[in-house]
Amino acid sequence: MPTIAARRSVAFNDAQIDMTHGAGGKASRRLVEGLIVPAFMADAIGEPLTDAARLDVGSAQLAITTDSFVVHPLRFPGGSIGDLAVNGTVNDLAVAGAVPLALVCSLIVEAGTATDILRAEVEAMARASRAAGVAIIGGDTKVVEHGKADSLYITTTGIGRMHPRALLSAARVREGDRILVSGNVGDHGITVILARGDIDLAADLRSDTRAIHPLTAALIDGLGPDLRWMRDPTRGGVATSLNELARDAGLAIVVDEEAVPVRDEVRGACELLGLDPLHIANEGQFLAVVASESADRALAILKQIEGGEAAAIVGRVEATPARTVLAGTSYGSTRVVDMLVGDPLPRIC
Amino acid sequence: MPTIAARRSVAFNDAQIDMTHGAGGKASRRLVEGLIVPAFMADAIGEPLTDAARLDVGSAQLAITTDSFVVHPLRFPGGSIGDLAVNGTVNDLAVAGAVPLALVCSLIVEAGTATDILRAEVEAMARASRAAGVAIIGGDTKVVEHGKADSLYITTTGIGRMHPRALLSAARVREGDRILVSGNVGDHGITVILARGDIDLAADLRSDTRAIHPLTAALIDGLGPDLRWMRDPTRGGVATSLNELARDAGLAIVVDEEAVPVRDEVRGACELLGLDPLHIANEGQFLAVVASESADRALAILKQIEGGEAAAIVGRVEATPARTVLAGTSYGSTRVVDMLVGDPLPRIC
Repeated sequence: MPTIAARRSVAFNDAQIDMTHGAGGKASRRLVEGLIVPAFMADAIGEPLTDAARLDVGSAQLAITTDSFVVHPLRFPGGSIGDLAVNGTVNDLAVAGAVPLALVCSLIVEAGTATDILRAEVEAMARASRAAGVAIIGGDTKVVEHGKADSLYITTTGIGRMHPRALLSAARVREGDRILVSGNVGDHGITVILARGDIDLAADLRSDTRAIHPLTAALIDGLGPDLRWMRDPTRGGVATSLNELARDAGLAIVVDEEAVPVRDEVRGACELLGLDPLHIANEGQFLAVVASESADRALAILKQIEGGEAAAIVGRVEATPARTVLAGTSYGSTRVVDMLVGDPLPRIC
Repeated sequence: MPTIAARRSVAFNDAQIDMTHGAGGKASRRLVEGLIVPAFMADAIGEPLTDAARLDVGSAQLAITTDSFVVHPLRFPGGSIGDLAVNGTVNDLAVAGAVPLALVCSLIVEAGTATDILRAEVEAMARASRAAGVAIIGGDTKVVEHGKADSLYITTTGIGRMHPRALLSAARVREGDRILVSGNVGDHGITVILARGDIDLAADLRSDTRAIHPLTAALIDGLGPDLRWMRDPTRGGVATSLNELARDAGLAIVVDEEAVPVRDEVRGACELLGLDPLHIANEGQFLAVVASESADRALAILKQIEGGEAAAIVGRVEATPARTVLAGTSYGSTRVVDMLVGDPLPRIC
């Protein structure tokens, strides 16, 4: 969930909403920055969009994040909408530097949905909540007529307490900083695409949905101010998150394309589908920017934690070309990596 | 939004979800208590369902509430889904005894929706937020295919700080306590029904959607522990909220039917439609239980605040028949007022 903050003037002149506006890429950003943010914060000049809003209550420094989950199909190898609804919100708190404390959830159910389908997702949420150690403490349920939803949509809101050692902001990113990724890229998006059955392609893949706060907390604990920025590259993938960072920091990100961990199955599916693995959604990974001198230590911290074994240093921050993401290979070729444009992967989370 | 807490064992054996499960009455309660609560809190024996969950962070005593809004049509005399999404969540915090601090919102938009429709609702939310003095600090937007939603659904989550003088619980309600209502009953539900245009009936009515926290805060300030319980009677109306109170408190509620403020237009529409005004949803009213000796003072407090002019003392708490709501008239007739059964008013909020 992006925090709402007004930035430079963005025009939103599209006459109607289409699927690209929900894809997490350029069109989504125009909608949010051109229509929603100006209404909610007409006069504010705030922080760049981040994954959780900050709220101080007395001495408690809180973070709050909300997300709606509309993934189709509801279930796919490795997870389901219930898992995503818990893990996705826990992860938005985690990458904002917060310790997740509790969740609330709201269900929109389509009339005619089998109770067993609903029960399976409520139980998936409960299991994911227990696995993450973050309780679901309240909720709401609405029902709409058959044909006015797609079985089940879930909105979860998470509240967390800011980690006292977390000092995360695109403004703290510096030339020379290193980019880390916590593990293999693209598993979730390709798994969901294949689960739809529209593409005649089989691959032994599972969604990476999981709660990442043990990994992010270890980095915050270990690095303190040398940890500059984190983001979970969901809709729009690694490419979109790094473009947002490049834009917000006014710097260049240079990705070592060969260092990015991508499973062969994901790479193969992407080649067949004409997609870039860097644009594919992830649900259990995060990107981190760390000070150059702490990069090896950050990698060691991640690798020693369960689920961090495939972590890698995948790039560095340069001064120019500002606001740009480049990907290079050892052969010397370099390409510009843009934000996601269009929506090759609708309703991925 | 009901807080999740396990209670006595409730069976939910319906094979599929239908509109009654979203109507806020008996079927909703079976779904929540028979399916959702057991999954999320398998072992807990908690407080009765209330409108907001409690969470203590350090010395900050917080309340959190979440609700999805799926009202149809989106706009109606006196308001729109954007107004409801802000006011409804502010009001859930208010009746829980909390001071609303901030909101986050998540939009699910149907592809093909005109941008002007979305813009109007975002602006309605912004206006309602400013009117209530509660900022929207973050959000999320998802888009689903045409035919997979009904233009726009909004989920809002509110966070508040518990008022230090609020001691609200059904367990604190005592025989002899008085029931107050803040104003006219049924305006919202009848307005929305008529706005659908399915019924050949015209009435000069407007939804009562508004933020009620100035009224609830004044009662808390003025009465302290003599204020026992509050609830905003939305889906299922006054009858359902009072039945929940009767059940949770193990007491009887006796309503003086002639004292309940109902506009002639609402009464007339209800008679034509075969509905009970006590079952009609409200979006800007609340019920309060106060100690007998403070009832007149509570009424005076409400009446002196803008929007509280129509407040009334409408009933009292009796010992028997326990767990029952009765309505009586000056003619001496008495009837049992049940929770809403079925769903005469789908998608009312």
